[in-house]
Amino acid sequence: MDRRFTAPNEDDIRFLEDICGEKDVISSGPLMDDYARDEMPWVKGYPDVVVLPETAEEVSAILKHASARRIPVTTRGSGTGLCGGAVPTAGGIVLCTTKMNRILEIDEVNFTATVEAGVLLTTIHQAVEARGFLYAPDPGEKTATIGGNIATNAGGMRAIKYGVTRDNIRGLQVVLSTGEILDLGGKHAKNSTGYSLMNAFIGSEGTLGVVTRAVLKLLPLPKHTISLLVPFGSLRDAIRAVPKVMGTGILPQSIEFAEQGVIFAAENYLGKKFPHRSAPAYLLIRLDGNSREEVTSAMEHVGNACLEAGAEDVLIADTPERQSAVWDARGAFLAAIKSGGEVDECDVVVPRDRIADLVEYSKEVAEKVGVRIESFGHAGDGNLHIYVIRDSMPEDEWEEKLARAMDLLYERGRELGGMVSGEHGIGVAKRPYMEKSLSDVEIALMARLKSVFDPAGILNPGKVVRFPE
Amino acid sequence: MDRRFTAPNEDDIRFLEDICGEKDVISSGPLMDDYARDEMPWVKGYPDVVVLPETAEEVSAILKHASARRIPVTTRGSGTGLCGGAVPTAGGIVLCTTKMNRILEIDEVNFTATVEAGVLLTTIHQAVEARGFLYAPDPGEKTATIGGNIATNAGGMRAIKYGVTRDNIRGLQVVLSTGEILDLGGKHAKNSTGYSLMNAFIGSEGTLGVVTRAVLKLLPLPKHTISLLVPFGSLRDAIRAVPKVMGTGILPQSIEFAEQGVIFAAENYLGKKFPHRSAPAYLLIRLDGNSREEVTSAMEHVGNACLEAGAEDVLIADTPERQSAVWDARGAFLAAIKSGGEVDECDVVVPRDRIADLVEYSKEVAEKVGVRIESFGHAGDGNLHIYVIRDSMPEDEWEEKLARAMDLLYERGRELGGMVSGEHGIGVAKRPYMEKSLSDVEIALMARLKSVFDPAGILNPGKVVRFPE
Repeated sequence: MDRRFTAPNEDDIRFLEDICGEKDVISSGPLMDDYARDEMPWVKGYPDVVVLPETAEEVSAILKHASARRIPVTTRGSGTGLCGGAVPTAGGIVLCTTKMNRILEIDEVNFTATVEAGVLLTTIHQAVEARGFLYAPDPGEKTATIGGNIATNAGGMRAIKYGVTRDNIRGLQVVLSTGEILDLGGKHAKNSTGYSLMNAFIGSEGTLGVVTRAVLKLLPLPKHTISLLVPFGSLRDAIRAVPKVMGTGILPQSIEFAEQGVIFAAENYLGKKFPHRSAPAYLLIRLDGNSREEVTSAMEHVGNACLEAGAEDVLIADTPERQSAVWDARGAFLAAIKSGGEVDECDVVVPRDRIADLVEYSKEVAEKVGVRIESFGHAGDGNLHIYVIRDSMPEDEWEEKLARAMDLLYERGRELGGMVSGEHGIGVAKRPYMEKSLSDVEIALMARLKSVFDPAGILNPGKVVRFPE
Repeated sequence: MDRRFTAPNEDDIRFLEDICGEKDVISSGPLMDDYARDEMPWVKGYPDVVVLPETAEEVSAILKHASARRIPVTTRGSGTGLCGGAVPTAGGIVLCTTKMNRILEIDEVNFTATVEAGVLLTTIHQAVEARGFLYAPDPGEKTATIGGNIATNAGGMRAIKYGVTRDNIRGLQVVLSTGEILDLGGKHAKNSTGYSLMNAFIGSEGTLGVVTRAVLKLLPLPKHTISLLVPFGSLRDAIRAVPKVMGTGILPQSIEFAEQGVIFAAENYLGKKFPHRSAPAYLLIRLDGNSREEVTSAMEHVGNACLEAGAEDVLIADTPERQSAVWDARGAFLAAIKSGGEVDECDVVVPRDRIADLVEYSKEVAEKVGVRIESFGHAGDGNLHIYVIRDSMPEDEWEEKLARAMDLLYERGRELGGMVSGEHGIGVAKRPYMEKSLSDVEIALMARLKSVFDPAGILNPGKVVRFPE
């Protein structure tokens, strides 16, 4: 353990047991493995102890103690992150939020849901949809906790129309490393009352405070959706169609892109045929609205815009079954790619007219470096997921080629006016790339922000920003 | 001048003239009066010198010099603020952005506009609408600069559907007090690349850095709008109708409320009759969409929801002339109230189901304190504008009654789960109320954020946060 920190001893573990009860403190046994990793395979780190608090007051007591004793605390939800953000690389305490899992209120007048940090995204979607509401953010990983979504400012497929997590948070309860419990924002829709502390915590990956509760913005649930599967002669043609689609004045709920290789992989993975498979590239478009007439009219406008932009065809998925055939495949892209063995991903975001440039460049990189690369992503918002795939490569070769490929991809992403992470965050895996892509002044400001909120530096040390020198 | 600061001398003025040219440096004459105030009457403070830079590089040189010499710098746009935020209460330099007034690009593929900080909101609206785009934020004061809108995180009437300024900013160029020029964000729609420095500057009222350029999110311009004027038997009935309207699944562009007194005042002020005037309270609703059918269908659903919620009638304004009759009156509310003489305003935001509670309480306050109070505001987002009106009251009495009324209003706003400012900011006028309404921990964190970004404390000193002790 870094000399600035203390490893928890028997007394510390007893203190945690006094706060949360013995059954919610784990310091040995096979469960420890589960808390040593997230979905990023190469970042590992064992906690000394895992604690599962049930209230903000328990979190406060844990953090106060940890600050005083200089024990690192890494907050974790479901551990579905892709950058090692929830892995306790400095040891110490893993503070797991999964027992703070209550939906406290769905306010049908103010259109808000108040939820604890450990509630799963899928649970929130189901609960609010049953009451006729939409919580708009829709990242692919539905078993993530809302706390994890807030920690990474998760995006997802509906961002083009409804924004990312940041745009859909009205209030946060946050516990500082020194133990104070803050209630920031609320149920109101506007706020110009001083600096937005709330926004500082969104996307801060557990390094500035521990989010224990959130007030989510709800929208009326759109009553109808319809999906279009649009084949194109090339990815460049598909990407060029996006501004034409949006030029109709209709904002689709989602505009995703995929190339044929990923479609085939998803077919193999699911053992199901995709509704169309002969085109080099596809747009997957979902439209929503309040009446069948509205979505049908939107479909006609959007379909025509695609055809005018050179689409080979426009396939309409208007029944739930047909829509599932398209979106189940989209949902399986990542799993299908991962079934090829170890992968690492580049979650870069660029202006949306540069997507084709970056995907085409990724093919050059694959050839130059000698590694397989597949990609898919969000054509509406410019966020690509580019996967470098190990297949059966020996470890040394993999490490060297992966590093070269990533360096090249991030460098080009930066040249195209993009950022290192669109929605997965920085964690520990992307920190070197973030440091290269932002200015030294920005990196220094981030480090100083860290010390404002977490003066002892115990919260998720080494993530997003470096340990202070 | 506070002993921590230096008043600029002849050498400093010559330095500024070297940077910006003599004609863009003003240090005497009648123009100085214009820079000593904003639209808040009782906050005054003369600058020693006013400088009008034209580039970020000039801003950088000014700030570097001012930091080294410890000269306060207050950034100002059009001076339309309502809280004294742009008034140089500590003297020193006023940095006026109005010569940085170019629209640099309207990107029709990525749906962004890149503009300098001194461009007026009305200029932006006109320029993008001419190209078929919408820049959604729509504060009442159209002669504000976009920099001023960013400084206060301005809201406006379309926030219920399209969010506030923060939700519509993709990128910012900011100059730090130490002279570094940062380019934050960009044209992309998602970003999870470390802490969001960009969001720290939005709503920081020129106390953390000087915004010189912004990348704005554009939307396709809705092709049709229709407005409804909906009379109710009481404000409470009107407010209760809002969730019913939104429960239709249709998000209006705007849902405003007004009581009869304000309508009468606007009629007098404009010399024009309002289309309906016998009801105690009104909702003003504007719907937008892509086709006549879509807005007509939306109008029917929303109109029926209002009638089911107890509306006396639903008046449809479907021609430009009829829509103007409603919205010109709405636009004149503030001017009409101000024509009664000096006023001060409370820009509180509460959960939207508490609006009627606060307006009714404001009438109790008016009676108890013995002062006239009028209000109107944004029924969709919970943001009220409550005006305490001086009429012909002698100064001592006015000061004492205003202070009592404001204390009571802010206290009740807080009890109702609200915040001190919904969209006008804190400046110097609202700081005492903000300090009472937020926790000491929040206030202390804000002060520490200030010193991260502006270590010399020269940027708009005394605004939002206090001078450090």
